[in-house]
Amino acid sequence: MSQVFADAEFKARLSAAQTRMAEADLGAILLTTEPEIRYFTGYLTRFWESPSRPWFLVVPASGDPVAVIPSIGAALMGRSWISDIRTWSAPEPADDGVTLLASALRELADGGKVGVPSGAESHLRMPLTDFDRVKTASGLQFSDDRGIVASLRMIKSPAEIDKIAAVCAIAGRAFDRVGEIAREGVPLSRVFRDFQRLLLEEGADWVPYLAGGAGPDGYGDVISPASEAPLAPGDVLMLDTGAVLDGYFCDFDRNYSVSHASDIAKHGHAQLIEATEAGLEAARVGARASDVWRAMADIVGGGEGAGRLGHGLGMQLTEGLSLTAKDHTILQPGMVITLEPGVATGADTLMVHEENIVIEASGPRLLSPMASAELPVI
Amino acid sequence: MSQVFADAEFKARLSAAQTRMAEADLGAILLTTEPEIRYFTGYLTRFWESPSRPWFLVVPASGDPVAVIPSIGAALMGRSWISDIRTWSAPEPADDGVTLLASALRELADGGKVGVPSGAESHLRMPLTDFDRVKTASGLQFSDDRGIVASLRMIKSPAEIDKIAAVCAIAGRAFDRVGEIAREGVPLSRVFRDFQRLLLEEGADWVPYLAGGAGPDGYGDVISPASEAPLAPGDVLMLDTGAVLDGYFCDFDRNYSVSHASDIAKHGHAQLIEATEAGLEAARVGARASDVWRAMADIVGGGEGAGRLGHGLGMQLTEGLSLTAKDHTILQPGMVITLEPGVATGADTLMVHEENIVIEASGPRLLSPMASAELPVI
Repeated sequence: MSQVFADAEFKARLSAAQTRMAEADLGAILLTTEPEIRYFTGYLTRFWESPSRPWFLVVPASGDPVAVIPSIGAALMGRSWISDIRTWSAPEPADDGVTLLASALRELADGGKVGVPSGAESHLRMPLTDFDRVKTASGLQFSDDRGIVASLRMIKSPAEIDKIAAVCAIAGRAFDRVGEIAREGVPLSRVFRDFQRLLLEEGADWVPYLAGGAGPDGYGDVISPASEAPLAPGDVLMLDTGAVLDGYFCDFDRNYSVSHASDIAKHGHAQLIEATEAGLEAARVGARASDVWRAMADIVGGGEGAGRLGHGLGMQLTEGLSLTAKDHTILQPGMVITLEPGVATGADTLMVHEENIVIEASGPRLLSPMASAELPVI
Repeated sequence: MSQVFADAEFKARLSAAQTRMAEADLGAILLTTEPEIRYFTGYLTRFWESPSRPWFLVVPASGDPVAVIPSIGAALMGRSWISDIRTWSAPEPADDGVTLLASALRELADGGKVGVPSGAESHLRMPLTDFDRVKTASGLQFSDDRGIVASLRMIKSPAEIDKIAAVCAIAGRAFDRVGEIAREGVPLSRVFRDFQRLLLEEGADWVPYLAGGAGPDGYGDVISPASEAPLAPGDVLMLDTGAVLDGYFCDFDRNYSVSHASDIAKHGHAQLIEATEAGLEAARVGARASDVWRAMADIVGGGEGAGRLGHGLGMQLTEGLSLTAKDHTILQPGMVITLEPGVATGADTLMVHEENIVIEASGPRLLSPMASAELPVI
C-alpha cells in the first residue's frame, strides 16, 4: 500500500501546526491516538484495535515529527514520509516505551512545554501510570495543546474532501440496493449484516459503524444493536453507517418504509428533508454551528431539547464542531459536517435523517446523494 | 435486543470486584471505556465509535453500579440490569458530565479512594482537562484500581467462553470458504473486502479487525492495509481476523498458497503448526505465559526476538496476558488465549499462524478449528 496522500499534504499540516505552536510557546506536541498520529504521518492500520501497545508521535516546534512506536510497526511506518522512527519491543512490562519517549521529548522539546490534546473529544491513549512516569522522567512541563490539533483537523484539505466524497458515493450506492436485502419478514439483525456486505461490495474498506432501527412510525433509539425481530409491514427502517475508505468516514443514513408507510412516517420523513434543506441553506461561510442548528430545530421542533443535529466528520465518525444551541463555531471553507435532524413521531418513537456536506466559499456542497422528500418503499 | 447475559453474570462480576475493592480499600472504581463499562453493565452499542461524548460507570464498594451517561444512551442502558442511570445532555461544552460525575463519586465513594484503571492496556476515555476537574470537584483521592478490573476480565465465565467459541466457529466457516473469493489475479484489497463479507454471511455481527498479507514464501508484515496487487501463483496468502459476536472477539488466522506452494512456504507452515501444537501442549493450568511462549519459540527460533507469540482474548481483540519471555502470569482455568507463533521465511518475509484456546482444569481446549500441517492450496 502506498501512502494515501502525497508528502506535501503532511508537510502542510506540520507547518500549520508549528506556526500555532510558536504562538502558543509549545516546545512539542505529544500524540497518542490513531487519528492524531495518522493526521501527521499517514500511518494507516487496523492494528489500533489491539490495546496492548502504546504508540507515540512527537511533533517538535521545528523539524519533522518523530515516531516512538513498537517495533511491530516499524516496517509500515517506514513506508510513510516519517524518517525518524524509534522503536522498542512492546509489550515490555518493565518499561513500555516510557524511557524512550521521555528521552525523545527531552531532545525535541528543547526545554519547552509539551502540549497534549486535552479538550473535548480527546483522550490520552496510554496508561495513566506510564504518563506520570513520562512526565517525571522527562523533567518537562506538560499542558494541553491549546486545541491546536483539533482545530487544524476541522478544516479539510481538497484531498481529504475527495476521500470523504468517495466513501459517501460508496455508501450511496449501497443504500440504493437496500431493497435487495430488506423486506417484510427479514430480521433486522440480518439486514444489518447484509448492509455491511453491500458497503464492502460497493468499495468500502471496512465498516466501523452501523446503527439503525425499525418500527411502526419510527424507532425507539438510534444506537441499539439490531434485534432479531423481523421487519413488519408498515415499519420504518433506518440504517445509519460510518463506512471507511482510506481512513476517511462517511456518516449518513436513509429511511425506508416496509411494504407501505403510515401517514405519520411519511410526514415525519418529509419534515426531516425540509429541515435538512433548511440546514443546508444556513450552512454558509461565516454562519455559526448554532445558526445551522436553529434552522433545523425550527422545523423539527423540540427547542434546545432537540439535542445535537449534526457534527463534524472526517478521520473519525464524529469530530470537531457540534450542531447544537451552544456551539458557536464559525463555519469556514473546508469544514465537512453532517446535517442530522431528528423528529419525534410518537411518545416513544423518533425518526432521524442525515446528510454530509462540505462548506465552500461559494456555498455548501452535498457529499452524500440527497434523499428525496418521499419515503421510499421496500 | 435483550441483554446478552443473565443478570446473575453481572452480579457475580460485581461481587468479585467488590471483594477485591474491600481488600484494596477502594471506595469506588471509575470506568470510562467501552469494554470496562460493558463488563459490569452489558451495555452493548457501536456508538462508542463516536468520540464526542464521555461515558462513566461508578462501581461503589457496596451496592449496584451507577451509570453517569449522555442522555442519548439512557434508553439502551435502561434495558440493562442497571437501575441508577444519571444523564446529562452531551455534548455540553461548559460542563460535559463533570459536575454530575463528581457528585456521584462523592456520594458513592463515601470519602474513600477512587480507583481508575491505570496499568498496561488501559486508558482513560475522557479529556484530561475534565478528569482534572472531576478530581478537584469531587475532593476525593484518586489512585490506580490495583489492576482489579483487568485481572477479573482475564478469567472468562462459561457464558463468555461460549460466545468466543461461537464467533470462532463463524470465522472457521468463513476461512473454509476463502477459495470462493481468493485466487490468482484477485487483488488483495478485494480479498479483504470479500472475506469480511464471508464473515458477515456466516453470522458475525461485525468485523472490527482484519489484517493479512501475501507474497512469495511469506509476507512483509502483518499489520499493513491490503495493497491493490493481484495474488500471484506461488504467493502465500494470510488472513487474520478479529470478528465479533455479541461483543466477543475471535482472533485467529489462516494461510493459503495461491495455485502452488514453495518448499519454503510449506516448511514454514508445518513449523508453525508444530509450534502451535507445542504451545497447546504447554498451556496447562499452573504453567506460566512465558512457558507457553518458550515451547513455541524453541520451535520457531528467534529467541527473545521472537516477540509476542500470543495473548489473551475476549471483549477486546487482545487483552490480559502476553505470551512473551517476560510475562510470567500463571495460567488459570477460564483464561482464553491465542497461540500465535511466527517464523522468518526469508530476509524480509515471515509467516504467522494463530489459534484460540481456553485453559481448563482438564487441559487446554481449542476454540478455533485447528488448521492442518499441510498448507491448503487455493
